[in-house]
Amino acid sequence: MDVVFLGTSAGVPTRKRNVTAAAIKKQSGKAWYLVDCGEGTQHRVMQTPLSLHRLDAVLITHVHGDHCYGLPGLLASASMSGRRHALTIIAPAAIRDYLDAIQATTGLHLTFPLEFVAVEAVNARLSLPDFSVEPVKLSHGVASYGFVFHERGVESQLDTERLDALGVPRGPAWGRLHRGEDVTLDDGTQVRSDEVLLPSRPARKVVIGGDNDAPSRLEAACLGASLLVHEATYTEDVVERLGSDNQHSTAAAVATFAQAMALPNLILTHFSPRYHDKRGVVPNIGDVEREARNHYRNTLYLARDLETYRLSRDGQVSRLERP
Amino acid sequence: MDVVFLGTSAGVPTRKRNVTAAAIKKQSGKAWYLVDCGEGTQHRVMQTPLSLHRLDAVLITHVHGDHCYGLPGLLASASMSGRRHALTIIAPAAIRDYLDAIQATTGLHLTFPLEFVAVEAVNARLSLPDFSVEPVKLSHGVASYGFVFHERGVESQLDTERLDALGVPRGPAWGRLHRGEDVTLDDGTQVRSDEVLLPSRPARKVVIGGDNDAPSRLEAACLGASLLVHEATYTEDVVERLGSDNQHSTAAAVATFAQAMALPNLILTHFSPRYHDKRGVVPNIGDVEREARNHYRNTLYLARDLETYRLSRDGQVSRLERP
Repeated sequence: MDVVFLGTSAGVPTRKRNVTAAAIKKQSGKAWYLVDCGEGTQHRVMQTPLSLHRLDAVLITHVHGDHCYGLPGLLASASMSGRRHALTIIAPAAIRDYLDAIQATTGLHLTFPLEFVAVEAVNARLSLPDFSVEPVKLSHGVASYGFVFHERGVESQLDTERLDALGVPRGPAWGRLHRGEDVTLDDGTQVRSDEVLLPSRPARKVVIGGDNDAPSRLEAACLGASLLVHEATYTEDVVERLGSDNQHSTAAAVATFAQAMALPNLILTHFSPRYHDKRGVVPNIGDVEREARNHYRNTLYLARDLETYRLSRDGQVSRLERP
Repeated sequence: MDVVFLGTSAGVPTRKRNVTAAAIKKQSGKAWYLVDCGEGTQHRVMQTPLSLHRLDAVLITHVHGDHCYGLPGLLASASMSGRRHALTIIAPAAIRDYLDAIQATTGLHLTFPLEFVAVEAVNARLSLPDFSVEPVKLSHGVASYGFVFHERGVESQLDTERLDALGVPRGPAWGRLHRGEDVTLDDGTQVRSDEVLLPSRPARKVVIGGDNDAPSRLEAACLGASLLVHEATYTEDVVERLGSDNQHSTAAAVATFAQAMALPNLILTHFSPRYHDKRGVVPNIGDVEREARNHYRNTLYLARDLETYRLSRDGQVSRLERP
């Protein structure tokens, strides 16, 4: 599973970082899923191999502009490039009002249907082609959600004990069942593929949060997760000066939570533009990283725009070199 | 007067060209005026010396997304950077509905007032600090306008005949009147500065069009203008294939109009993304230029993003080298 960061700045873009967006996809295949869509996300997409034709769903965490002002333009561009197949949008209901208002006031006519799912009404996992998705309510000034991505289509192996118990003879029938076909035995017994297949490993689980001042809201979601992607807008010293009513998390708070949950991998994003990327200029993004490392001992990354992080089948996260 | 192109693509951004926006400003000073604001305009502004604090007015030609989807983010960023003084927005009334809807649905709270002027109701020149502005109705699918910028504050010289007739003695009184002060003569006569000053040259006039399939709508506006900036979305061969109901202008149509008006300078912009910038790839932006040159013999440019064009006091347009 790959996560591609399309924007990693909070509130406003900087010269190096756009406002928030991230793509998640299976390592193989071209289908992808977009989480948040700040202004200029479609411009970032053009800098990647991702195609708007292969975008299977857009998930928006909340209605603040730095997370959704790129959505109308992205939909318009998908239309102008000839997309015809439906696009699923999973988001707080406020996003539907926003999109309705844009379409009504700017004459935006889409060439494809939007299938809108209001997260407030979701009480089961949503099945998308590559993932099943669960929204989790977070704590922010407006309704804000995180999304848990459960891998679908994990490779399977034959349950040999069950095959023997069912009396399926070793040979071509086993191969057909492994490939997903149902078979009829010589004695007329029907054997379904799905009753003799076992996943060969646990499905991977990735949690991508929205803006949130209470990481503990993601406690249940993070159980057994391989990776948490979470905002770390501020460092503690800045919050001491600004006040703690900013509705965002510090690097320390997220790192402490991730450590307590024993999460193997943590990627921080959504940094206040006050933190400079250039070495030696203060406050610096290095301050955010140091604060997080003080509280978290497993694999930690601070995302930058256009970086791709790969979660391997055995749960290791690594940053890919840019092609 | 300088025109800085912030986006020169029609409909969708490309890797080299953003959707439409242009800045106009006096050569000296930091105040500037924005015409159109496609998605990502604030990102382009960051690549220039222009500051959102010194933006005096935003003029939007029409409500299509490639001309206005960057406005909410630009206003949000101006707020987050602490702007407090009012911002004038001059646009079709539909833009007010659009902004109202965005504010209502996304909780966008601005730290400064918007002073909205609906162009449909304008029947005199609008006085802005550096320019007076006249909207001109164009022909497009939705209400679309061009804007005529008349230079304000042209350097003045003393009307010596008038001074002699009024009996103002040569000396310090002349200097004070030239500096804009009123004076009282020894005999008690009041002489106002503005009655003895003459502009030392004609005020410059620049016309910036919106989307428009009938350049002749700008006939009156272009009389005596030094520069027309106009869309040239297509070439004629493309329109022959697509049909002529596309509501845009060809390079040939704009160039023919500009030649008939004897305009000294023409800058084309808003090119369909089908025209490639890379040499040798067809259809090519060079096709647009050749078509225009076949019909127009004065100074012609095809704008590219982040280029600045300078209109000198004597009416010459040149492209500035990038710093």
